[in-house]
Amino acid sequence: MNVTRPSGRASDQLRPVTIERHYTRHAEGSVLVSFGDTRVLCTASIEDRAPAWLRGKGEGWVTAEYGMLPRATNTRMQREAARGGQGGRTMEIQRLIGRSLRACINRQALGERVITLDCDVLQADGGTRTAAITGAYVALVDAVSLLMKRENLKRNPIVGAIAAVSVGIYKGLPVLDLDYAEDSNCDTDMNVVMNDGGGFIEVQGTAEGHAFRRDEMDALLALAEKGIGELVAAQRAALATSIE
Amino acid sequence: MNVTRPSGRASDQLRPVTIERHYTRHAEGSVLVSFGDTRVLCTASIEDRAPAWLRGKGEGWVTAEYGMLPRATNTRMQREAARGGQGGRTMEIQRLIGRSLRACINRQALGERVITLDCDVLQADGGTRTAAITGAYVALVDAVSLLMKRENLKRNPIVGAIAAVSVGIYKGLPVLDLDYAEDSNCDTDMNVVMNDGGGFIEVQGTAEGHAFRRDEMDALLALAEKGIGELVAAQRAALATSIE
Amino acid sequence: MNVTRPSGRASDQLRPVTIERHYTRHAEGSVLVSFGDTRVLCTASIEDRAPAWLRGKGEGWVTAEYGMLPRATNTRMQREAARGGQGGRTMEIQRLIGRSLRACINRQALGERVITLDCDVLQADGGTRTAAITGAYVALVDAVSLLMKRENLKRNPIVGAIAAVSVGIYKGLPVLDLDYAEDSNCDTDMNVVMNDGGGFIEVQGTAEGHAFRRDEMDALLALAEKGIGELVAAQRAALATSIE
Amino acid sequence: MNVTRPSGRASDQLRPVTIERHYTRHAEGSVLVSFGDTRVLCTASIEDRAPAWLRGKGEGWVTAEYGMLPRATNTRMQREAARGGQGGRTMEIQRLIGRSLRACINRQALGERVITLDCDVLQADGGTRTAAITGAYVALVDAVSLLMKRENLKRNPIVGAIAAVSVGIYKGLPVLDLDYAEDSNCDTDMNVVMNDGGGFIEVQGTAEGHAFRRDEMDALLALAEKGIGELVAAQRAALATSIE
Amino acid sequence: MNVTRPSGRASDQLRPVTIERHYTRHAEGSVLVSFGDTRVLCTASIEDRAPAWLRGKGEGWVTAEYGMLPRATNTRMQREAARGGQGGRTMEIQRLIGRSLRACINRQALGERVITLDCDVLQADGGTRTAAITGAYVALVDAVSLLMKRENLKRNPIVGAIAAVSVGIYKGLPVLDLDYAEDSNCDTDMNVVMNDGGGFIEVQGTAEGHAFRRDEMDALLALAEKGIGELVAAQRAALATSIE
Amino acid sequence: MNVTRPSGRASDQLRPVTIERHYTRHAEGSVLVSFGDTRVLCTASIEDRAPAWLRGKGEGWVTAEYGMLPRATNTRMQREAARGGQGGRTMEIQRLIGRSLRACINRQALGERVITLDCDVLQADGGTRTAAITGAYVALVDAVSLLMKRENLKRNPIVGAIAAVSVGIYKGLPVLDLDYAEDSNCDTDMNVVMNDGGGFIEVQGTAEGHAFRRDEMDALLALAEKGIGELVAAQRAALATSIE
Repeated sequence: MNVTRPSGRASDQLRPVTIERHYTRHAEGSVLVSFGDTRVLCTASIEDRAPAWLRGKGEGWVTAEYGMLPRATNTRMQREAARGGQGGRTMEIQRLIGRSLRACINRQALGERVITLDCDVLQADGGTRTAAITGAYVALVDAVSLLMKRENLKRNPIVGAIAAVSVGIYKGLPVLDLDYAEDSNCDTDMNVVMNDGGGFIEVQGTAEGHAFRRDEMDALLALAEKGIGELVAAQRAALATSIE
Repeated sequence: MNVTRPSGRASDQLRPVTIERHYTRHAEGSVLVSFGDTRVLCTASIEDRAPAWLRGKGEGWVTAEYGMLPRATNTRMQREAARGGQGGRTMEIQRLIGRSLRACINRQALGERVITLDCDVLQADGGTRTAAITGAYVALVDAVSLLMKRENLKRNPIVGAIAAVSVGIYKGLPVLDLDYAEDSNCDTDMNVVMNDGGGFIEVQGTAEGHAFRRDEMDALLALAEKGIGELVAAQRAALATSIE
Repeated sequence: MNVTRPSGRASDQLRPVTIERHYTRHAEGSVLVSFGDTRVLCTASIEDRAPAWLRGKGEGWVTAEYGMLPRATNTRMQREAARGGQGGRTMEIQRLIGRSLRACINRQALGERVITLDCDVLQADGGTRTAAITGAYVALVDAVSLLMKRENLKRNPIVGAIAAVSVGIYKGLPVLDLDYAEDSNCDTDMNVVMNDGGGFIEVQGTAEGHAFRRDEMDALLALAEKGIGELVAAQRAALATSIE
Repeated sequence: MNVTRPSGRASDQLRPVTIERHYTRHAEGSVLVSFGDTRVLCTASIEDRAPAWLRGKGEGWVTAEYGMLPRATNTRMQREAARGGQGGRTMEIQRLIGRSLRACINRQALGERVITLDCDVLQADGGTRTAAITGAYVALVDAVSLLMKRENLKRNPIVGAIAAVSVGIYKGLPVLDLDYAEDSNCDTDMNVVMNDGGGFIEVQGTAEGHAFRRDEMDALLALAEKGIGELVAAQRAALATSIE
Repeated sequence: MNVTRPSGRASDQLRPVTIERHYTRHAEGSVLVSFGDTRVLCTASIEDRAPAWLRGKGEGWVTAEYGMLPRATNTRMQREAARGGQGGRTMEIQRLIGRSLRACINRQALGERVITLDCDVLQADGGTRTAAITGAYVALVDAVSLLMKRENLKRNPIVGAIAAVSVGIYKGLPVLDLDYAEDSNCDTDMNVVMNDGGGFIEVQGTAEGHAFRRDEMDALLALAEKGIGELVAAQRAALATSIE
Repeated sequence: MNVTRPSGRASDQLRPVTIERHYTRHAEGSVLVSFGDTRVLCTASIEDRAPAWLRGKGEGWVTAEYGMLPRATNTRMQREAARGGQGGRTMEIQRLIGRSLRACINRQALGERVITLDCDVLQADGGTRTAAITGAYVALVDAVSLLMKRENLKRNPIVGAIAAVSVGIYKGLPVLDLDYAEDSNCDTDMNVVMNDGGGFIEVQGTAEGHAFRRDEMDALLALAEKGIGELVAAQRAALATSIE
């Protein structure tokens, strides 16, 4: 098989990843994450209230909202606020982000608080949801650190790291971290969320063209595992930087 | 490991499956499917129009909508029409059903037509989306058969069979076809859509509690493969019956 | 006048009526009612809360919601949840059902509870709202019986039986219980709700073509009275069956 | 029976009725109608277009919209535009107004035009829908007269007069034209729409308290017939006035 | 410069202004205001509740809502309640009315109450928002007078008079109180709200055609000052009339 | 008067202004503008279609949409897309931006095209609407330059420069370019839009506390004139940079 990726990357190569903390100043956590030309602003906002269904249980909640600026994409999309509501794709993505991030939180240790992760895509080039999860994790850590200091919490509510990447089969070749040129031409597209212990949090694979075989799935999962290892390292490096 | 399922089923045992064709009389295809106490009415409606984005391309489209009657569940849920719109869960599910069924259709052979699969849950006991996909496939076949006769189509637009099942890890035990009692207590929940050639169409796995390991995923996929084989057989048996 | 009804029925003849109790298992009352090919699933759901405007008054409330599955009809109708709200026809019908059923309830005896009657049309062939009222009454009785046992109520909140039927003038002939073929071709269409004491609860007559005269109205009311007598008998027969 | 009406009116006495034509200057027909303290502004607007479902059939359509100013009533109601949509009561009423007025129009003679009757309640004291129908008829006649002159139509699209009144049983006494004090305390409330030939267009009776008997219904219909005769006379008198 | 206004008015001449108090009977204040053919019904409704964000602060609030009857204008506009929400122009105007009227109220003296000013345009001929503000002030005074009597308030919450007028440059000529014929053809349009002490509350100027120069702005402000003086006098005259 | 601004700026001093062109890569024009800590991403998107009301007239249109990321502000605001629509403030601002930018465009020269200016606030610290207008102008120039090259236009549709600034009275002192600390404590707040010829496009002044006098208004307009001169210079400097 002799397939060249449009970007010239090796099949198991991520795009350049940057994680810029404290990108805006109001949010408790604020991260601009880039996977190549995909840029997502992730903020974590803490509110001192339990959601209705958890009131009085001493537990907190983590939730997410996702949006795309109208011209984050190649042709302008209608603004969801102007159209009167969020579409199905948006809801699907923000539910995925929320579920994924809840997997690294101890909700008892968080206490009766809600943390909302807002992931807004400034520029899209494929993989916006996986970049969002990867960046939102760092914003969440920053927000929780602030909270622990401010409220003098004893236990750290963060119980592990979470990152995500897409994998897919492009012209027969299993590849890591699809950009838009690949994404719009691939047969199978899979988003994988894992923790830093190598456990799976979410696996969402879709055959866009032909159904995929078990051995292809195995190849994709191996690529994802490799990519997420590198993303977790990038998160750690970003968090290691002390910022005033 | 000595875990008993609430229903007493073996870990690789489906609930009783029934597929009743021609359940209502107006739709081109109309199927009442049951996976145990989960009952979903699936209708296939044909319209002679291309969706806007396919106009003039000579291709058709298959789409799906999903709904739950307000008291299909244990406690009454608010009617989505009264609440003013479909929620995130509904959108996520109907997008999954539509993508899955498009995987067994040759859209050129279908011609400039839209087939809408309406999947309405009359009674819910876990696995409504997988029952919906499995039943909707049969409704789709009935509708396409009618269309082929009526329009004298030369090529069959149906290019394979599609079925779906849920699998999960219940108290440490990988099990097939979760009912509500299991679903609400399981650690990992995975919906798998496959075709009759053993290819994967969709895999959506979620760690509800602990992250799942690669070997657990392998066990779940094997269970799904077995279950879908039986569901495809049930679809064939139902379709083999001649009905006047 | 020598008019034959499309169905061959006599002018004062109902369609075959069936009332199937306990059709689904979650609701406190659940009835599948058929007037010929019109099939409506009626569930009664009890909630232990007073609506806001009755709080603290010791009274309950009965309300109704109505829906049609998108392909209950000959051509597919847009799903109201997808369209973003209930249309005028739906609202008109569910207000009628709610008002009608409240006429057989002693709201003091019910106590601070809300009973919601969901009437969802699985298949439509004319007369869906009258079938809904007739079936919802039986679901309401089942729900209230359960409530009386569970809560050990002393007084029965049900104070009479309620049934409904449509009447109309088809090609000059007053006829009972219009099916769709008649409904779409009749000059006058009247929905009548009565109690088992022969009292009128609702009369809604509309001249679709020519205005109707007083003597025509008298003929229609007489037909309705006969039909409702038979429907009340069918309700009693259904309720007389002991079901485990 | 010795019941006095709150207003001191005789049981078969209408409130003072006024019909002021050309109340605003932009609409093709514009009428301020009063039934006592109930005041409704009815405008008729002509547009030279067929609705989608009548395109190319050479027929027109008459439709109605109804609204209440937020403080037309004793306590302020939320503005429907601010709440995000029309409620069930509004939809029910505007559907009734539209159906009623279509009963006096020859849609072929109207040609491919839409006439919209906007009925906006400036002040409410019971009977707003019947006042609206009675006033809208006069606005419709004015609009059609203008249209006939402007377009040189040969046939008059108006084929009769339409008026409406409410009747009800107040403390056991059948009374004509209920005001708010009666309406909120009556057992049975019936809205009757008739044409000037004595034919019924709509009859909508509701038992608010006890079910009503056949003889009560007969008494109510007789009162309605008397009242509508007087309203048709008032419409004629208003239309006889030449206005520049 | 030799420009004639379409109405023949002098450049600094208001249209005839009428202020009719107690126009409807339910509202605490109810005024029909006319600026020429522009007619707006302004009602003031008092509710004994603080808005959520002022609860427990002992302060009140004044807010406004604006609407146009669908046929207040030359061609029929869609009803905002039917369209599903208020448009941008409506929101802009009602926010302006609310802000303006709050400028003449001492919110501590008002106490925990909300006064809602509903301004509904019955007929539009330019200047609806300035007529609305001018009329709403009178309705507000009437409502507050009633409140002071009823609740025996010691301090008058009204701390000054507020009126508004539009000014603009029509064919090069600065003119006062634009009607629709001028408004739709002018280069600059400015709405000015002032109090009776000559202070500015709001100035909203828009260059519709060419940008306006500082000297033009000065001329417009002088015209507005003159017009508002006359409007405040008209308000005083209307309020001086004792009405039972 | 001895008032110090919270930021220590002189009363006639702008915050540091930066204008970063080509901030994102898909839009025809894309500018990140900062007025101090206020940061707005402005994109200009060109579509080759006339809006409905201009079809066939050979003219184009410029429109704007405005949004705030939920955590652009000190406390998180609800996402407008999730709430189901744009609020009054958003509509007011985007209407202002659109009107302002249309003042520098020759719509005949633009031809049948729509340019949409999306102004999304990444971080808010007062003056978001004036920053948006100032940045959107630069994005518009970039988009139009691209269009002229691509379509070989003969006439430049841009007919002047547009910039905007806020002015206000803070503790009695007229000041230029209010930041949030000043904005939330000022008596009068005025947004001024001017062109590079010194003409006024929009003046929107609001008395938040006491009404403002004519001499205060004069002082504010003089400050605005000075500030806009500097902003136009900053725009020119940014546009003078050649970027590949």
